[in-house]
Amino acid sequence: MNDDNKLEKVVAMSKRRGFIFPSSEIYGGLANTYDFGPYGTMLKENIRQLWIKKFVNENDNIHQIDSSVIINPAVWEASGHVSNFADVMVEDIENKKRYRADHIIEDYYEKKGEEIKVDGKSAEELDEIIKSQEIKSPDGNKFTDAKKYNTLFETEIGIISGSKNKAYLRGEIAQGIFMNYKNIIDSIHPKLPFGIAQTGKAFRNEITAGKFTFRTLEFDLMEFEYFFDNNKEDWNELFEYWKTQVEEFAISIGINTDSFRWRAHEEFELSHYSSRTEDLEYIFPWGPKELFAIAYRTDFDLKNHQEKSGKSLEYVYPDGSKIIPHVIEPTFGLSRAITVVLMNAYHEEEIQGENGLTGKSRVVLKLAKNLAPIKLSIFPLQKDEKIQSIAKDIYNNIREKFSAEYQDSGNIGKMYRKQDEIGTPYCVTVDYETIEDKKVTVRDRDTMKQERVEIDKLEDYITKGLTQ
Amino acid sequence: MNDDNKLEKVVAMSKRRGFIFPSSEIYGGLANTYDFGPYGTMLKENIRQLWIKKFVNENDNIHQIDSSVIINPAVWEASGHVSNFADVMVEDIENKKRYRADHIIEDYYEKKGEEIKVDGKSAEELDEIIKSQEIKSPDGNKFTDAKKYNTLFETEIGIISGSKNKAYLRGEIAQGIFMNYKNIIDSIHPKLPFGIAQTGKAFRNEITAGKFTFRTLEFDLMEFEYFFDNNKEDWNELFEYWKTQVEEFAISIGINTDSFRWRAHEEFELSHYSSRTEDLEYIFPWGPKELFAIAYRTDFDLKNHQEKSGKSLEYVYPDGSKIIPHVIEPTFGLSRAITVVLMNAYHEEEIQGENGLTGKSRVVLKLAKNLAPIKLSIFPLQKDEKIQSIAKDIYNNIREKFSAEYQDSGNIGKMYRKQDEIGTPYCVTVDYETIEDKKVTVRDRDTMKQERVEIDKLEDYITKGLTQ
Repeated sequence: MNDDNKLEKVVAMSKRRGFIFPSSEIYGGLANTYDFGPYGTMLKENIRQLWIKKFVNENDNIHQIDSSVIINPAVWEASGHVSNFADVMVEDIENKKRYRADHIIEDYYEKKGEEIKVDGKSAEELDEIIKSQEIKSPDGNKFTDAKKYNTLFETEIGIISGSKNKAYLRGEIAQGIFMNYKNIIDSIHPKLPFGIAQTGKAFRNEITAGKFTFRTLEFDLMEFEYFFDNNKEDWNELFEYWKTQVEEFAISIGINTDSFRWRAHEEFELSHYSSRTEDLEYIFPWGPKELFAIAYRTDFDLKNHQEKSGKSLEYVYPDGSKIIPHVIEPTFGLSRAITVVLMNAYHEEEIQGENGLTGKSRVVLKLAKNLAPIKLSIFPLQKDEKIQSIAKDIYNNIREKFSAEYQDSGNIGKMYRKQDEIGTPYCVTVDYETIEDKKVTVRDRDTMKQERVEIDKLEDYITKGLTQ
Repeated sequence: MNDDNKLEKVVAMSKRRGFIFPSSEIYGGLANTYDFGPYGTMLKENIRQLWIKKFVNENDNIHQIDSSVIINPAVWEASGHVSNFADVMVEDIENKKRYRADHIIEDYYEKKGEEIKVDGKSAEELDEIIKSQEIKSPDGNKFTDAKKYNTLFETEIGIISGSKNKAYLRGEIAQGIFMNYKNIIDSIHPKLPFGIAQTGKAFRNEITAGKFTFRTLEFDLMEFEYFFDNNKEDWNELFEYWKTQVEEFAISIGINTDSFRWRAHEEFELSHYSSRTEDLEYIFPWGPKELFAIAYRTDFDLKNHQEKSGKSLEYVYPDGSKIIPHVIEPTFGLSRAITVVLMNAYHEEEIQGENGLTGKSRVVLKLAKNLAPIKLSIFPLQKDEKIQSIAKDIYNNIREKFSAEYQDSGNIGKMYRKQDEIGTPYCVTVDYETIEDKKVTVRDRDTMKQERVEIDKLEDYITKGLTQ
């Protein structure tokens, strides 16, 4: 397997094994849109729960909320998204296909063996490059003028008539957090520093073609705003602290330190609200791409919303003194993490036998064990009522504790093949010997080594294995 | 407290204590849109997890998926939503406020002391009633002609130009399930009968004013389609079986059998896809309203999608025979369940002392214990380092096991008041005696009785209490 076709293989495996499907596929699907199958849903939920545990449950001062997708459009006007949250786009005048102007230009120069950086250039500047170079569409046609295209999805609210009914699907989940800052202060009465967290969907009407779930029209984010008094705390120190925590989280989902790098945003690419941003980039075969990020958003958002809403967003100390808190924002792409985790875990390897390599190969998903959708699979080796009944009992006793599967059809090879591909850490087989010695055979996903374990000690064995 | 203002009190408590906030409130909010604060988020998640446990985890043949909000618009055309998913609406010609025509007519007759049922009437029929009766808007103005207004939120996809770019936000989550039926068959290879479940947001551009989270523009649903062979199984039996399960779930979230009723849909109100539907209605002070429902959708959806997509949606038996499965669909409003659970749990009561009623009252949220956001609160009674340290140790030991809070500011009365209002089953206080006897005082939310419990036995005590 070379790096280039690894993504293709992951996409195929994801569909074949029930992780991820192209959305509304029987109608031809929808660009950059995927649905999660049973194992994908479990994988996603496992990552989300791990995140909630680390960042919410283990921090008494971080509070989780769940805000709406469609909110008062004034929020997006105030936040600058209506005017700034845009891609510059060109359209093929013949077939009406749309492209991002910066990508068209970069591709054009790349084909000529030159490199060009156009980040931060205006629509007019991009347009001039395309016209002066007479760049054509991939289908050989002329382009329309480049124009800014807002990436907020627009909709209309029926209950309101006329021009006031325009609304947006949220393009990020952070604004929902800022909108609830005052409610949290008034209800939970937290002391600074404190955080407000949420997980949920955001929507971006992007022209870009994505790589699997790495860049999609709708996607799950997990993020929190950490509010602090910048007169009392050094933002650089907080930034470094949370940066370490972001990194720890990446490692906990199985991404080794040599598979990612940190990249600081340069001046020109900083968002309109940020004065320092660093991306944790996963190093894909096609280059490093942002997976998580941490931004120091200063007091931009609260100050701005205070001014535009006319409502005080000050934090009041017991002595009556008031400040507008600053924020550090760690943000985590959950949908894109799925592609990263799958790419990272996917292995094709030759099977090691007792006398060296066997020449046979297998596909195995070496997921971090805490993320595996299924922790153990139980299989009666013989079609024998007694054996099946023991296997079923083991399954029924252990399924409340671990996500487990019972399988009594097919053969052992087929079972191993499936469980390896979905990343199940342990396969447990019950056979004639079990009737005598009350032991089962436990096969380890990664080493493929088998061990006889007493039925009574199976739960401890699995617990220990999963937490190693 | 009379019934009429109970909702008002629940709304106020929800805001005051961090359960539910009006969305984007500092900008004046958005009609029928709410955000969930920390305790609301936990409550919602507890209900969702309980549902997943009962319907997914405890049924080997029900598989959970997570499909997209924006899918190929052909799905909504095929499903009949584009043409049938509509309210009939009238608009005040002066101030442009919009109303549902049926509600306007019903209100008009109600004020005259007459009752009228207009369900199932066409836009033309409703229009004629409004015109013939010269019904005016609440502000005394004339109405525009009544017209059908589709309740699917519309949007446009940027990547596609021109007329093909229209898309919809999903108005129900069931279509996402039907879209993945074939993928589940091809990847998981389930045997009939089997179910596909999902939880997630749906969006309805409704004109109706809602009651708190009971009817909102966006809302969380939990539902599954149970696919079966109607030649081998009796749909009436399956319907009754799942109806019982739906009822069990209602009871598990604290809704007593005398607080709900089942109501079968009459012929004229059945959806275009259903041949039997029953609603589990919660009996609000203002009347019974649908909370959960169960519908026999026949093979309408699969047959229809097979025809319109041109893709086979047949289930193939090992012997090669083919059928289109029928479905039973149990559906659960999660967002609306929050209002029901809060209304149901909210109590104002006079405090019972040792010598009878004390004349003092309290607000207490008698939530089913499994739903309580916080299971126990730990409070050091005296501002003493040793006591605080013991309390903190107890908190740190128990928080991995139960959602817990440590509070060492304020006084005991304030702590009890807060924990009663957020429905915390147990309050644990540590005092000077604890240093001597290694016991803490545990107060029960409902009985307000206090008991001394050994610190070493606290976890067992709470575990037992929560599962009673």
